[in-house]
Amino acid sequence: MNLSLEDLEDLARGAAFLGTGGGGDPYAGRLMVRQALEAGGTLDIIDLQDVPDDALIIPTAMMGAPTVLVEKLPRGDEAVKSLRALEQHLGKKAFATMPIECGGINSTMPLVVGARLGLPVVDADGMGRAFPELQMETFHVYGVSGTPMAITNEYGDTAIIISHDNHMMEWLARGVTIRMGGAAYIAEYSMDGRTAKRTAVPRTLSLGLQIGRGIRHAREQHKDPFEELIAVLRETPYQYGTLIFEGKLVDVWRETTQGFARGRAVVAGTGDSAETLEILFQNENLVARANAELKAIVPDLICVLDSESAEPITTEGLRYGQRVKVMAVSVPPIMRTAEALSVFGPQAFGLQETFRPIESLSNNVTR
Amino acid sequence: MNLSLEDLEDLARGAAFLGTGGGGDPYAGRLMVRQALEAGGTLDIIDLQDVPDDALIIPTAMMGAPTVLVEKLPRGDEAVKSLRALEQHLGKKAFATMPIECGGINSTMPLVVGARLGLPVVDADGMGRAFPELQMETFHVYGVSGTPMAITNEYGDTAIIISHDNHMMEWLARGVTIRMGGAAYIAEYSMDGRTAKRTAVPRTLSLGLQIGRGIRHAREQHKDPFEELIAVLRETPYQYGTLIFEGKLVDVWRETTQGFARGRAVVAGTGDSAETLEILFQNENLVARANAELKAIVPDLICVLDSESAEPITTEGLRYGQRVKVMAVSVPPIMRTAEALSVFGPQAFGLQETFRPIESLSNNVTR
Repeated sequence: MNLSLEDLEDLARGAAFLGTGGGGDPYAGRLMVRQALEAGGTLDIIDLQDVPDDALIIPTAMMGAPTVLVEKLPRGDEAVKSLRALEQHLGKKAFATMPIECGGINSTMPLVVGARLGLPVVDADGMGRAFPELQMETFHVYGVSGTPMAITNEYGDTAIIISHDNHMMEWLARGVTIRMGGAAYIAEYSMDGRTAKRTAVPRTLSLGLQIGRGIRHAREQHKDPFEELIAVLRETPYQYGTLIFEGKLVDVWRETTQGFARGRAVVAGTGDSAETLEILFQNENLVARANAELKAIVPDLICVLDSESAEPITTEGLRYGQRVKVMAVSVPPIMRTAEALSVFGPQAFGLQETFRPIESLSNNVTR
Repeated sequence: MNLSLEDLEDLARGAAFLGTGGGGDPYAGRLMVRQALEAGGTLDIIDLQDVPDDALIIPTAMMGAPTVLVEKLPRGDEAVKSLRALEQHLGKKAFATMPIECGGINSTMPLVVGARLGLPVVDADGMGRAFPELQMETFHVYGVSGTPMAITNEYGDTAIIISHDNHMMEWLARGVTIRMGGAAYIAEYSMDGRTAKRTAVPRTLSLGLQIGRGIRHAREQHKDPFEELIAVLRETPYQYGTLIFEGKLVDVWRETTQGFARGRAVVAGTGDSAETLEILFQNENLVARANAELKAIVPDLICVLDSESAEPITTEGLRYGQRVKVMAVSVPPIMRTAEALSVFGPQAFGLQETFRPIESLSNNVTR
């Protein structure tokens, strides 16, 4: 698959949607890919099934608080250094790179790496959305070791982390990221094609592209972009999307702490409703409650969208007065198993509620 | 050189003296060496001049706050893992290990590594005393890169850090150490014999042994151990030792913060004097002031000793009511150059005073 510049814009928008508030500024990610392409790089996106079983895949990503990334823009070659450092440590060359998550800048970061190094990028990822922590990956859920991993900063300072425990990997890498200024670049969960086919969420770059394209088409054709989004999702493994709230942002509290952007947004309902919706986030949106009643919860997607254009709004982009619609989306069954929920379900984030699928929560839409 | 168990005890005591309050509990270090010897290991301490120019030396040490180490005792093989991890990363085997500092547990840690692996231990170090930070080494002062370095915890989790900047190495390694619980084990400043001969402080293991033995002999022969200490020092490159204060500990404030034990001790003068001595420390004692007048300052040694036995008291061992004598000792000229002072002089610790040699400060001893 090749990507045009228009495709890139669609992908960035779709990735921001799947990022559920996290993953950083998609615009910055798009600019980096564009720059790499204009410098003569080419993009080769390949299907997971076309990766040879014994070929080495080294996923690449940015790590840190999106609130930091907004003020500390990447140059574009940082994740290249992470991949090279890991190759050197492993004594093996990568056949391809791959996203670890599907969301914001981390959907485009591997494209930059691929374009700069002439490596194919695998159309799959390890989250099927964005999550804030490194062990919150289907790779981890299904037994892949995240280490050895490489982590670099913009000066080329590097740490290679080796652990038997992916939680410890996250803990140590987060410490290094904080000391690198709150944003760093990683290569982790290196694995062969056989393992990727078993553990990755397939075709999520395509999915991002499809979602972003759907929103653009609706706008161009003056159709309702929310209805279009719901229609697009119905054809994917994410299937069920629904609007859970509409209103105006009346409160945003946000702090960058322990390497994460944590906070709370409050949306006051428009029209007759006196309801307010509260959304808690840790980089990504985790739970939405309307007057203490559960409306949607992780790992289902909670996406805050501009109420006119359906443009996704990331957590660091939330501003007082924005008029928004909040959409919740079901994730594929593989992300709702007991194993998966123990890694990235509500309890993994310290939330009180147990997981309830959005399909069972959403028959009371408030506008 | 071979060490008897009595030698070990002397070395631990002398190393605690040179540690100037830092370097952790020397007793724990001694036990670890003893255990390694009883398990069949042998100790081979060699002179720097006997290391071939092209032989690889990998220094080993513990890193962290001594206040943590007291409660989180090492098992003894942690630094072995650091050395092995660095060997693996470098793709080269070590010919020998070496202390990075001369003080407390870090004088004995390389002995444990040597005894366990059958590697010689070089009789030299990179500080000529103890300092709290990794760039505060003569290796750094004279141009050796500290990285690649390896850092491990008691579970074998490992980070390899690579940087062009030894301050960044300290910054990142400290972050990892904090996340490893405040104490970790390192292998760093790997270098060939030629470089070690140019940059290391020679014969500091022998010096520690000599100091510890001097104190023991004085006790056995019912002589004044302080006079004996001063006499021993006169025969070494440290030359000038002097008692700067005598009194009772009346205040100790200490906190473990950002990976260091930082604090302040106050000694009230005994006898007629109404003076008090204030000592500030960051793992190691940094400055001693009597009623705001400078009495001794880093990098000269400031050693708090039991007023009867002259047993060195480490900063985490300071207790209200202890009767102590405080000795200051001149460091060798190589540690007082402008280059050296810029790395571990008063300004490197944020102190206001400029360096003044103890010889020029000490003609007003207060008892």
